[in-house]
Amino acid sequence: MNQKIVETIEKISKPNENVISKTQYLLDNLTKPKGSLGELEEIVKKVAGITNIEKPKVVKKIVFVLASDHGIVEEGVSAYLQEVTSQMVYNFLSEGAAINVFAKHTRSEVIVVDMGVKNRINSNNKNFRDRKVSFGTKNFLLQSAMSQEEAEKSIIYGIELVEEVLRAFPIRGGEILIIGTGEMGIGNSTSSSAITAAVCGKDPKEVVGRGTGIDDYRYNKKVEVVRKSLQLHKAKFDSGIGILSSVGGFEIGGIVGIILGCAANRIPVVLDGFISTSAALIACCLSCKVIPYMFAGHLSKEPGHKIQLEFLGLKPILSLDMRLGEGTGACLAMNIIELSCKVLNEMATFDSAGVSTEL
Amino acid sequence: MNQKIVETIEKISKPNENVISKTQYLLDNLTKPKGSLGELEEIVKKVAGITNIEKPKVVKKIVFVLASDHGIVEEGVSAYLQEVTSQMVYNFLSEGAAINVFAKHTRSEVIVVDMGVKNRINSNNKNFRDRKVSFGTKNFLLQSAMSQEEAEKSIIYGIELVEEVLRAFPIRGGEILIIGTGEMGIGNSTSSSAITAAVCGKDPKEVVGRGTGIDDYRYNKKVEVVRKSLQLHKAKFDSGIGILSSVGGFEIGGIVGIILGCAANRIPVVLDGFISTSAALIACCLSCKVIPYMFAGHLSKEPGHKIQLEFLGLKPILSLDMRLGEGTGACLAMNIIELSCKVLNEMATFDSAGVSTEL
Repeated sequence: MNQKIVETIEKISKPNENVISKTQYLLDNLTKPKGSLGELEEIVKKVAGITNIEKPKVVKKIVFVLASDHGIVEEGVSAYLQEVTSQMVYNFLSEGAAINVFAKHTRSEVIVVDMGVKNRINSNNKNFRDRKVSFGTKNFLLQSAMSQEEAEKSIIYGIELVEEVLRAFPIRGGEILIIGTGEMGIGNSTSSSAITAAVCGKDPKEVVGRGTGIDDYRYNKKVEVVRKSLQLHKAKFDSGIGILSSVGGFEIGGIVGIILGCAANRIPVVLDGFISTSAALIACCLSCKVIPYMFAGHLSKEPGHKIQLEFLGLKPILSLDMRLGEGTGACLAMNIIELSCKVLNEMATFDSAGVSTEL
Repeated sequence: MNQKIVETIEKISKPNENVISKTQYLLDNLTKPKGSLGELEEIVKKVAGITNIEKPKVVKKIVFVLASDHGIVEEGVSAYLQEVTSQMVYNFLSEGAAINVFAKHTRSEVIVVDMGVKNRINSNNKNFRDRKVSFGTKNFLLQSAMSQEEAEKSIIYGIELVEEVLRAFPIRGGEILIIGTGEMGIGNSTSSSAITAAVCGKDPKEVVGRGTGIDDYRYNKKVEVVRKSLQLHKAKFDSGIGILSSVGGFEIGGIVGIILGCAANRIPVVLDGFISTSAALIACCLSCKVIPYMFAGHLSKEPGHKIQLEFLGLKPILSLDMRLGEGTGACLAMNIIELSCKVLNEMATFDSAGVSTEL
């Protein structure tokens, strides 16, 4: 495996349990019954352990929206034309998509990355990054979606995106950043279904969903495409890179890299839905040390998502039956993570407010 | 019943189904697969029907935090001293409590109301309202918590709080406001348990929870207190006012009034947890026409809350195991409701963005 990926994985250590205990102590002195903020308290403790900071303060929230095209759309597995991927990239850049509204509402920044869209994206937008590995993947019903080199390249691009952000916003004092993962790619729920079946050992029927909203005819076709692909590529399923290269996508590889990069640099990474979590499965195949660094932003309506989260042992922060992707679920969850940190930083203690403690 | 309450109830009509259809049409033209924003789409349609505005824009979010004391604490049902109610009122006013952090984060306004705190609250804070019905309720294990007149007075105060807000921020054009309900009152989960058992016909064991975090000894005592109180007051359980006056609290009555006032004036009202929802049960006893105007902000960890929400047929927006009250769950949910309206106002359409629609 490429040296950059190996080194990044080697850099990943465990969250700091000592810091978590200190944060627990701080929480218990705030003017509220112990534990009464439920999951918010669990979240801030997890952030503390990840970042090694007992009183973390979120100063930057970034959602990466990685876009790429998929050769598998030739098989008629999607309800939309392939052109929609690039059309939506332009929509992200002109701030008309759902993720833009979510990001503005939550004061997050969107960075749009071309990981492998079929056409050339022309943009000088400061929030756009051209990291095109190739002009779309190949049809994985017939051949590998990408080469091993391309798979590794997509992961490295993801790692570098995190490193670039860290250079621009170095973590200082108690100030931290959070990164969310988002994606766009017509056909990518088929790719994610194949990854999920391969990693979690499930039948395609259990993990294939309706994606953007396909009818029964396309759904059955999608299940068969995944079934046949698993058969074709199974010899390569003994490694994360093998799975990614045979049935993955460039945006999925990019998210694998973002996850590794975040874990190596002690940055909380917030997964969006089914596609992002299929990248998390591959990251976990590369090294299960990434798991404690990940938050599940929400539970998608896509049926395979629950299977993925159970496999990873992650509990979703939100459950709003969303199935849009783009990082929308991650973005909304990042806002709650930020709030959980504010509780620690802004609430009065029993002492400071002159409130009597428990009897 | 008091004429003001009767007139308010008479003013409540049904949400507008026509407007909901128009909002559905607008949603389906936005650049996203149909229905892919799940609950967010259901939320904005509900807001549209309530407000009679097909493209509602939230310009104001207000959380009322109603505080009051409870005579039932004499029975040793709480883990905190009664003084904590007034201490927390001052904490709200100096912005050190959880709800203040939640409100600042979500750009909401907190209005603190003394509905019946045991001591006189001295404050000139512009966000404070003195609506003291009395200096705490009586011990409802021995007698009615309040008189029928006091019960009605607390409801009228709640209605007037909404009317006052409407005078200050009249709804114009597509601009709307949302109101959230919060509370503080040592002992009020015992009162809410009795209300829930009375309205939903449940055994005290099913609806009594740990409140702020009581031990087994106090828990068993709390169950017995509720059981005996239900026995004592059951003759008065045939009306909402009867239940409120026998086992309720002034803050609970105030929230009943806020709910009625919101429904009468087509304002979405967001319930917090167990205490707020016990007020919703009483509002529903007065008139079930209020139900479509209410959102369940979150699912509290308090076991009786699930029973209440099932009774009202409401699905919680969030589920974060919180059990703090103060309006924290409502406040966080209001932020999501606001976002769901922004989606409608700020997203591009397939036409405007030049994105191809479904095949």
